Amino acid sequence: MAHLVPLADPRDSRVADFVHLRDVQLRKSLEAEHGLFIAEGEKVIRRAVETGHPVRSFLMARRWISALSDVLDRVDAPVYVVDDATAEAVTGYPVHRGALAAMDRLPLPPVRDLVTHARRVLVLEDLVDHGNVGAIFRCAAALGVRAVILSPRCADPLYRRSVKVSMGAVFAVPYARMTDWHGGLAELRDAGFRLLALTPDQSAVPIDKAPMGDRVALMLGSEGDGLSSRWLRAADEAVCIPMSSDAMELGVDSLNVVAAAAIACHSLTR
Amino acid sequence: MAHLVPLADPRDSRVADFVHLRDVQLRKSLEAEHGLFIAEGEKVIRRAVETGHPVRSFLMARRWISALSDVLDRVDAPVYVVDDATAEAVTGYPVHRGALAAMDRLPLPPVRDLVTHARRVLVLEDLVDHGNVGAIFRCAAALGVRAVILSPRCADPLYRRSVKVSMGAVFAVPYARMTDWHGGLAELRDAGFRLLALTPDQSAVPIDKAPMGDRVALMLGSEGDGLSSRWLRAADEAVCIPMSSDAMELGVDSLNVVAAAAIACHSLTR
Ligand SMILES: C[S@@+](CC[C@H](N)C(=O)[O-])C[C@H]1O[C@@H](n2cnc3c(N)ncnc32)[C@H](O)[C@@H]1O
Ligand SMILES: C[S@@+](CC[C@H](N)C(=O)[O-])C[C@H]1O[C@@H](n2cnc3c(N)ncnc32)[C@H](O)[C@@H]1O
Repeated sequence: MAHLVPLADPRDSRVADFVHLRDVQLRKSLEAEHGLFIAEGEKVIRRAVETGHPVRSFLMARRWISALSDVLDRVDAPVYVVDDATAEAVTGYPVHRGALAAMDRLPLPPVRDLVTHARRVLVLEDLVDHGNVGAIFRCAAALGVRAVILSPRCADPLYRRSVKVSMGAVFAVPYARMTDWHGGLAELRDAGFRLLALTPDQSAVPIDKAPMGDRVALMLGSEGDGLSSRWLRAADEAVCIPMSSDAMELGVDSLNVVAAAAIACHSLTR
Repeated sequence: MAHLVPLADPRDSRVADFVHLRDVQLRKSLEAEHGLFIAEGEKVIRRAVETGHPVRSFLMARRWISALSDVLDRVDAPVYVVDDATAEAVTGYPVHRGALAAMDRLPLPPVRDLVTHARRVLVLEDLVDHGNVGAIFRCAAALGVRAVILSPRCADPLYRRSVKVSMGAVFAVPYARMTDWHGGLAELRDAGFRLLALTPDQSAVPIDKAPMGDRVALMLGSEGDGLSSRWLRAADEAVCIPMSSDAMELGVDSLNVVAAAAIACHSLTR
């Protein structure tokens, strides 16, 4: 059972897991070093606990305790009870969404194990925006894709913003991270996946005409540069979502990667 | 021709248009009161100027001047030249993306005029997230939708974050704002549009089976509650994007509104 610990000093080392939540660089290194992540809000905390993530500690104002009482009953971790000013002084922002929890990450499966039973997978190359990564997990959960593979440098699905935007789907859709960018796609091909590279290049095969086959991996590129030329070459086929012929004149040369992922996942279901 | 004005005091009233850019509430009222908006970054400023928005003033560090020199040559407005510390003290954040411009809004067309020649329109009811509004404009531009109608309370497409996320598409895709939420849809129906309400309710007609007809309006609801029951009732048909049967168990009851808009706009093109 969780135990309540009133706390007033924002510099107290017991709340060190929660500091500077808006400082992306600092959080990245702190979370990697300690193997932790932050879950925010009742719904997300609940899902993270249900999916087996150990809680290191909670940080919340007194008014959020009752909504989470069933979770607190089952979990053995300190609950640092703070007022709003202390919460803001620790985290660096006004904590609106309710409770925070610092949790331990679970070990990720190797790519090979993840895809053994999957028929459709998404492969994300070097996405930088955490919101986009989270939104793509939500699409995957909603549209029946049950495995996501990340390139070695792709943004972290367990970063606070990713988790939030995903509505907890990052806990529900299994994912793995490649250790090797060069050879990472070979493993998918060996497992029998047809590799489709999604590109805004309108000379590629329109997605609704691309043969899907039994096992399909949809590859999506980063927000700025798109897929690397190496991965484009390694794909079995380049496919595009047709864009309006005057989009370029309007200054739009591509879809946002979440929009592209949504349309692509939807076409997998046809 | 724009004229350079070096400026060191962040409290100087001449840069009042640029204050507290991260304070949504304050900016909303300030921008409404003065009929202005902020464009950020070379690409966005360029598009805003090209689409006829008068510049009130620029704020930038010296190093951004040359990239915008052709624009500055054509525009008659002061360029407040500041160092990075002053820029941050004025705006409230480290200005990474380059130049800022404060611009005058143009009057919006009435809904009736906007839709005279449109075949496909999007109707957004009470979206609250500026990023989502911007992303939907980018989808519209890319996927051939050339008119967007906003409910009276829908988030502002010219808010800085909307503009940024849209990549300037908010200047390219014409839009109008309803003055009357109650009767707003009647005007579209009178203009001959078939009103399709997009809902995650899986008992609705799947979008790929919905008859589109000659003129179609796709209605999208807000991030939290979705479409109001009034608008759902007023629609000609409720349509859904089919979701995986286990999505609910995974904690996902709907798509993000941008993902839904993307899939819906794509199905209009089939
Ligand atoms: C913002 S786009 C990258 C744009 C980049 N300039 C390029 O040429 O690839 C990010 C990713 O979204 C996907 N994407 C965007 N628009 C697309 C389209 N029309 N068809 C297929 N995929 C698209 C691609 O996977 C792309 O790598
Ligand atoms: C996040 S959803 C709102 C969820 C809300 N709980 C509801 O039941 O509508 C925002 C909007 O995206 C659209 N949307 C989301 N998922 C959809 C789906 N599966 N099919 C059609 N539209 C969807 C709808 O227009 C909805 O109003």
